[in-house]
Amino acid sequence: MGKDTISMAGIFPPIPTPFDAAGELDWKALAFNFKKWAPYPLSGYAVLGTNGEFPYLSEAEKLAYLEAARKYIPSGKLFMAGVGCESTHSTVALVKKVAALGADIALVITPSYYKSKMDGAALTHYYQIVADASPIPVSIYNMPANTRVDMSADLVIKLSQHPNIVGVKDSSGNLAKLGEILRYARPGFQVLAGSAGFLYPALCLGAIGGVLALSNIAPQQCCDVLHFFHQGRHAQAKELQLRLIAANDAVTSRFGVAGLKAAMEIVGFCGGLPRSPLQPLNNEQRAMLRDVLKEAGII
Amino acid sequence: MGKDTISMAGIFPPIPTPFDAAGELDWKALAFNFKKWAPYPLSGYAVLGTNGEFPYLSEAEKLAYLEAARKYIPSGKLFMAGVGCESTHSTVALVKKVAALGADIALVITPSYYKSKMDGAALTHYYQIVADASPIPVSIYNMPANTRVDMSADLVIKLSQHPNIVGVKDSSGNLAKLGEILRYARPGFQVLAGSAGFLYPALCLGAIGGVLALSNIAPQQCCDVLHFFHQGRHAQAKELQLRLIAANDAVTSRFGVAGLKAAMEIVGFCGGLPRSPLQPLNNEQRAMLRDVLKEAGII
Amino acid sequence: MGKDTISMAGIFPPIPTPFDAAGELDWKALAFNFKKWAPYPLSGYAVLGTNGEFPYLSEAEKLAYLEAARKYIPSGKLFMAGVGCESTHSTVALVKKVAALGADIALVITPSYYKSKMDGAALTHYYQIVADASPIPVSIYNMPANTRVDMSADLVIKLSQHPNIVGVKDSSGNLAKLGEILRYARPGFQVLAGSAGFLYPALCLGAIGGVLALSNIAPQQCCDVLHFFHQGRHAQAKELQLRLIAANDAVTSRFGVAGLKAAMEIVGFCGGLPRSPLQPLNNEQRAMLRDVLKEAGII
Amino acid sequence: MGKDTISMAGIFPPIPTPFDAAGELDWKALAFNFKKWAPYPLSGYAVLGTNGEFPYLSEAEKLAYLEAARKYIPSGKLFMAGVGCESTHSTVALVKKVAALGADIALVITPSYYKSKMDGAALTHYYQIVADASPIPVSIYNMPANTRVDMSADLVIKLSQHPNIVGVKDSSGNLAKLGEILRYARPGFQVLAGSAGFLYPALCLGAIGGVLALSNIAPQQCCDVLHFFHQGRHAQAKELQLRLIAANDAVTSRFGVAGLKAAMEIVGFCGGLPRSPLQPLNNEQRAMLRDVLKEAGII
Repeated sequence: MGKDTISMAGIFPPIPTPFDAAGELDWKALAFNFKKWAPYPLSGYAVLGTNGEFPYLSEAEKLAYLEAARKYIPSGKLFMAGVGCESTHSTVALVKKVAALGADIALVITPSYYKSKMDGAALTHYYQIVADASPIPVSIYNMPANTRVDMSADLVIKLSQHPNIVGVKDSSGNLAKLGEILRYARPGFQVLAGSAGFLYPALCLGAIGGVLALSNIAPQQCCDVLHFFHQGRHAQAKELQLRLIAANDAVTSRFGVAGLKAAMEIVGFCGGLPRSPLQPLNNEQRAMLRDVLKEAGII
Repeated sequence: MGKDTISMAGIFPPIPTPFDAAGELDWKALAFNFKKWAPYPLSGYAVLGTNGEFPYLSEAEKLAYLEAARKYIPSGKLFMAGVGCESTHSTVALVKKVAALGADIALVITPSYYKSKMDGAALTHYYQIVADASPIPVSIYNMPANTRVDMSADLVIKLSQHPNIVGVKDSSGNLAKLGEILRYARPGFQVLAGSAGFLYPALCLGAIGGVLALSNIAPQQCCDVLHFFHQGRHAQAKELQLRLIAANDAVTSRFGVAGLKAAMEIVGFCGGLPRSPLQPLNNEQRAMLRDVLKEAGII
Repeated sequence: MGKDTISMAGIFPPIPTPFDAAGELDWKALAFNFKKWAPYPLSGYAVLGTNGEFPYLSEAEKLAYLEAARKYIPSGKLFMAGVGCESTHSTVALVKKVAALGADIALVITPSYYKSKMDGAALTHYYQIVADASPIPVSIYNMPANTRVDMSADLVIKLSQHPNIVGVKDSSGNLAKLGEILRYARPGFQVLAGSAGFLYPALCLGAIGGVLALSNIAPQQCCDVLHFFHQGRHAQAKELQLRLIAANDAVTSRFGVAGLKAAMEIVGFCGGLPRSPLQPLNNEQRAMLRDVLKEAGII
Repeated sequence: MGKDTISMAGIFPPIPTPFDAAGELDWKALAFNFKKWAPYPLSGYAVLGTNGEFPYLSEAEKLAYLEAARKYIPSGKLFMAGVGCESTHSTVALVKKVAALGADIALVITPSYYKSKMDGAALTHYYQIVADASPIPVSIYNMPANTRVDMSADLVIKLSQHPNIVGVKDSSGNLAKLGEILRYARPGFQVLAGSAGFLYPALCLGAIGGVLALSNIAPQQCCDVLHFFHQGRHAQAKELQLRLIAANDAVTSRFGVAGLKAAMEIVGFCGGLPRSPLQPLNNEQRAMLRDVLKEAGII
């Protein structure tokens, strides 16, 4: 699969990183989860995204974890790896290692600590150098709820001209922006919804899939939305989309990574706790989560 | 048309308020514009919304203007009137007058000056008292870009239980929120897109139309998006939606009311200047606006 | 007292507007409160500011209320009147009426509904036209917590060149900005702290007083901070300042106008309820407020 | 110097991290700078703060850099080291290494990536575990402009009860909050201004010094503000404070780390470039910076 033709179409769970009781990486849990995801028509996996607690792993842990993920991801599935660091220097170093480990796509989040200085010039410089240096195709990863940096349509459109920047995962939920990117980016530039809360409307505008926290715990339902859309079964796509919104909200903005991990356990995956300072759900929150998943038909 | 059955389906331009060279209400321009909108398949008009510079009119001007609008709006078209004030006291007084003048729907924006206190309890109190007092059906109007108050799905869903609150015009662009409202609000509660930037995706989720700044200057195109959607011609709806996004952005967030008024003139309506402190477009901005409208096929 | 020499030095309570049980302006309560403030060494009163619920009064109510205030404010005390409307047109009309009623200073808040367009050009245009038209001196009123428009030091410095713009009441709490204004504004330009939470540090930088919600209920203490400062008794000024912060917070950001009105009653003034949608304090909040006032030595 | 008695009184430059032309750590430049700071009455140095581009160094670089700093910092001066990571796990690991290297104080910034979940419970958990584990005293580091997490007075006051949390460096500029901390934190809890823009007013309220970007390039002036304050020479402290605000703004919010590094060169230190994606100043910006430094009397 060449750079030019790599397809990110389909549904990708941004997998949570399992930790054991001592707070260390839990390889067995990881293997268990991948085995459980295997039967679903997912297009691949995104490792070390926001739901993977990437800022909470040391450099050594990141590499060990990606190496393990490589073992468990079957060859027919895409392996997206979160490699974004704050500095160009660190991101370039990491993307080379990650490519050597066998990842297929580098998911590169916007640097954000010096947010008032992350203007068009800074971000253009960053993405161009990273994309030049990366042995594997790069996907922009826009996540303003966490970074408080929101890449504009104009900037994404401009960066889409780089031959090694193949797409964008946008979690902003700004559909007008997605539409503008879809109209003006270079032909073939791939847009992925960054949240199951707006998967179907994003598909309607031309997105080709999504990296969806919800697809960790409801892989079939997320794939069904895409399937219904592809078959022109809009009424079913809409009905399912509406049913999934509250559940998606629960495992993302409402309860965050801790909520996603609790939901993993409820549906039979290994979940475990997030690392501190993220706090686990209390019993009341778990009960609310269970109700939401039930209402959505996920359990 | 009874309260229970009033339908807000379709496309509604939130009309700009024309001022003459002296900065006073320009009745001739208003009449001219209504005549020019008449042939299009619009469902009605929203008067004294954000695009109508409602905060810039005195109380007496508002009443005179709505009275004039009533004369020009044909009986088959819905007359939505912006009546939201900061206090319950003022809004109740205004909605009664406006109903007496013959408006069909009261568009009630969230109060916002004391924004940190506009929590669920305050907004529930406000909308319930206004809806109780209003002789005409009420539509919630959520416009967080201006108010910095963003009504949650939960709150809209709760208010949808009031028999005189018939719908919501939401300009937040948060499609997941719209979807949640559409799934959980009382059956028959009507959701309108508040911006042409996300009209088609909102329709896909169940919205029944929109109050769209862009429909002032591109009424046919906006109605076409709805028409294509109704006929299941998704490819055409999408193509047209993508084409309109940049133009919509130009007459809303980018250039604001001054941009909308300049665009009105470019396409042959009476536009004029906004009231100060809103500043008119300079020549360079006008040229950019013209280019955007051309690219969108509007001129 | 001429325009050029009018002094805003000292402490000014931005008085709350009393409403009776029916929600109408309560003249008796107003008279009562002014009588009770009379013995304190306040420099004057600010009427129809944020604490006066100015956005909740009709145009007619505003004029009647200001007329009443004029009667109760002794000639030796300054009468500041909030006259800011959203449009230049409305503000100019109001400031003329208010000057005719006998107000001494026009307090002009930044217009804010179209916040993304309230840039330097728009605000400069606004303040210059208002100041040109105003028969009485104008003070800028910056209140970003409510308006979400924050005037920069540069803009205030530029506007300070206008001979009829005599000062600024800044509630942002940004002391570095106050300092920049104090250094670069035209000599004689008067800076007032907009909150008792930072009165003493603002005085240390060169502010000459404050318009302070807290001075409604603790007029002596607020005047004492100023007095200690003037006498070079820094340790006492500091000690008192620290003691007042929590009480100030309670009657401003924490409990808002409803909290200020409840505190008015606790200390023996007429308070009453704010207009809806502002909600009155519940019993638990009242008890907390009482504790805070006690801890501060106000009761 | 025991935990209980360590004093952070005085002025601390948060030193910029010098990189050579290849973008690698420049030890010679570091040595040069420390030699040049040596004659000033600074109380110590803060290494790997925001101005030290801490998010841009790898773990190995951080340790090598702190080790080098330890060599250059004389024993009479305090060595504050920035050790805050996103996870409790990583911060605990780092603080132990840093203590072993000989740092005196651990400066622990708020974790912020999962900002919506960084509530009181999460931050309390984080700081308590870090402070329990740290062999050296901990200072909280609040920097909301970068983190978009703003620790409340209540939270800081609560954490001040921990015997190993000795103070806070607050860069929010919210003087009322500083005052509340100063009044209610445990006796002896040390408050440092996080920016020279409000050093003097913070001292007036009880702060005992500051960690000030400006003190890198104007160490004497910053120490003078403190000196004047200690001697009760308020007029001189104020005059100098007002003079420094614009220069401070230039090397912090306006031009950021790149501006600070450019200013370092202008005043005779080694500056160099920040790491990408931070962009160096262009010539026009450098000229503006030079003008500002001249106006402030720094050059």
